[in-house]
Amino acid sequence: MIIDIHGHYTTEPQQLLTFRDKQLAGLADAMRKPATTDLGITDDDLVKSVQPQLKYQRDRGSDLTIFSPRAAGMAHHVGTEETGIVWTRLSNDLIGRICRLLPDNFVGVGQLPQHPGKPIQNCIPELERIVNELGFVGVNLNPDPSGGHWSGPPLIDRYWYPIYEKLVELELPAMIHVTSSCNANFHYTGAHYINADTTAFMQLIQGNLFKDFPTLKFVIPHGGGAVPFHWGRYRGLAQEMKKPLLSEHLLKNVFFDTCVYHLPGIELMARVVPIDNILFASEMLGAVKGIDPETGHHYDDTKRYVDQVKSLSEGDRYKIFEGNARRVYPRLDRLLAKRGHPGKQQQKERV
Amino acid sequence: MIIDIHGHYTTEPQQLLTFRDKQLAGLADAMRKPATTDLGITDDDLVKSVQPQLKYQRDRGSDLTIFSPRAAGMAHHVGTEETGIVWTRLSNDLIGRICRLLPDNFVGVGQLPQHPGKPIQNCIPELERIVNELGFVGVNLNPDPSGGHWSGPPLIDRYWYPIYEKLVELELPAMIHVTSSCNANFHYTGAHYINADTTAFMQLIQGNLFKDFPTLKFVIPHGGGAVPFHWGRYRGLAQEMKKPLLSEHLLKNVFFDTCVYHLPGIELMARVVPIDNILFASEMLGAVKGIDPETGHHYDDTKRYVDQVKSLSEGDRYKIFEGNARRVYPRLDRLLAKRGHPGKQQQKERV
Repeated sequence: MIIDIHGHYTTEPQQLLTFRDKQLAGLADAMRKPATTDLGITDDDLVKSVQPQLKYQRDRGSDLTIFSPRAAGMAHHVGTEETGIVWTRLSNDLIGRICRLLPDNFVGVGQLPQHPGKPIQNCIPELERIVNELGFVGVNLNPDPSGGHWSGPPLIDRYWYPIYEKLVELELPAMIHVTSSCNANFHYTGAHYINADTTAFMQLIQGNLFKDFPTLKFVIPHGGGAVPFHWGRYRGLAQEMKKPLLSEHLLKNVFFDTCVYHLPGIELMARVVPIDNILFASEMLGAVKGIDPETGHHYDDTKRYVDQVKSLSEGDRYKIFEGNARRVYPRLDRLLAKRGHPGKQQQKERV
Repeated sequence: MIIDIHGHYTTEPQQLLTFRDKQLAGLADAMRKPATTDLGITDDDLVKSVQPQLKYQRDRGSDLTIFSPRAAGMAHHVGTEETGIVWTRLSNDLIGRICRLLPDNFVGVGQLPQHPGKPIQNCIPELERIVNELGFVGVNLNPDPSGGHWSGPPLIDRYWYPIYEKLVELELPAMIHVTSSCNANFHYTGAHYINADTTAFMQLIQGNLFKDFPTLKFVIPHGGGAVPFHWGRYRGLAQEMKKPLLSEHLLKNVFFDTCVYHLPGIELMARVVPIDNILFASEMLGAVKGIDPETGHHYDDTKRYVDQVKSLSEGDRYKIFEGNARRVYPRLDRLLAKRGHPGKQQQKERV
């Protein structure tokens, strides 16, 4: 089984986008507020909207996508905490419905109603809802809800501890994923996303978070930002700070996805990052659309890159495509087992 | 000749650091202001202070370091514009004296008295001084003088144009280098530096700056941040924005150094970035001190990595170690020619 752990719902029905326009317009002019949160999106609309994703799954050879709302759509810095709560529930509900309609193709991951300056505790009701009511297996956690001003505390600050406690209790991994940027310095997919990945990893080096939460698991997307390219720098900085080796300090808890859009990048990852820490993903549909003229294939067809890495054994490939995802997302593993996909025995034993 | 284009003066005499303490203390209590800018640093003090750099040059086999004040010391966000001007002059003057005392080992690059919210024009007098009086061959330009809040405009904004006009007139390349961070989210060498490199490159993709300044040259340090690792992402984003190929859009004007502290990173760079755009550098002494237990060598002994890249021809090595630096820093080229180092003819012809 090929599990793509990073897909966003970027083909939402127009009704959802229209609702958001009205909701935000309503902040300036109450007359414009949407009258209802019943968007009139039918099951047929939803199934139709994800045909592009289903086609790519077939064409590229993946089976299951871990699916969450559009990352840039979260926009925690936009509107008020109240609009964010409504928007988050609507966005998560659509993911939940798609996963019920197409359970073999999609498993859900949610967004949270984070808001700059507000306690992270306020997100716990929605976190419990997406797990207990919607059956999601993970959540996207935004390390910078200010949208590019980075005005909140780093991930190792106790500010975040209430959500970490709940994540541990629910056995839920968090993907550390920012949203759109309202800072003109940071293009969202070209700078803000990648910087956030790099920043999060360095924050985790600086702290000792996993001493307090030994079972907490984070996925850093986009190949970990700059981290694998600067693996020597990060090993050296940890050493200078008298931290344990990265394998001890972070790598039981921190994982990277393969959203790196060329073969040399994926080869570097596979060479420096332990295979146990790499999870297959494409982020389709996409951060980077279009066809690479150098290969004739889509930039984000990342399975092709992984397939081409010669140094990987069959066991390595199993880990990257399935085994690691089932270990990092225990609720996914149990869901798949219940559906008759036991996973490889050797992998199961080490869980 | 092996030219290391990125070294900072991180072994400053105590007098300089004491001056800075007093200068900043003087902002709170005028009684504490330093009485004089005559720091009493002798030529012997200066020569003694750079013995570690000279030893590394000998041990590692480099000849000449392009030398600038401590990057984190610039701290444009600290104090007032007035304290910054005095601090900048003092810092640049020490570099100038070292380069006069040890002309075979060091050539100077300056810092500017940038200050958040102040016009960049205010830096022009110091820019002219470091070239015309101190003989410097380049300058460090901070894309975020707010120190991690990124409250100013991006590099493609017309805010920066007056300094670009002067850089072109003076034939001076700028290294895009931030300073220390006053944002707890960003560790300075582990996140802020690398993020700034990535951010700058993406800003340049978004704009058309080199249409307005076809001869302007930027060096993005630390291997270009995340850029080579995500080369496919950046090619794809430029394509989506209907920009020309990177080779046309940026690569006549933007160069990367080799401050990447492990062999796989340097190999990736040499594979995806055109050799004409790679300049040898180590950033010693250093962003990352210490010895890599995996190799038994210093992390920042980057010449070893370049030496080990099998795919490089002799011509490639000449470009990385000398030729590209002489092309990007024309004042350095003329200085070396005057001193009897003509550079390779084929290289000269393409300048």
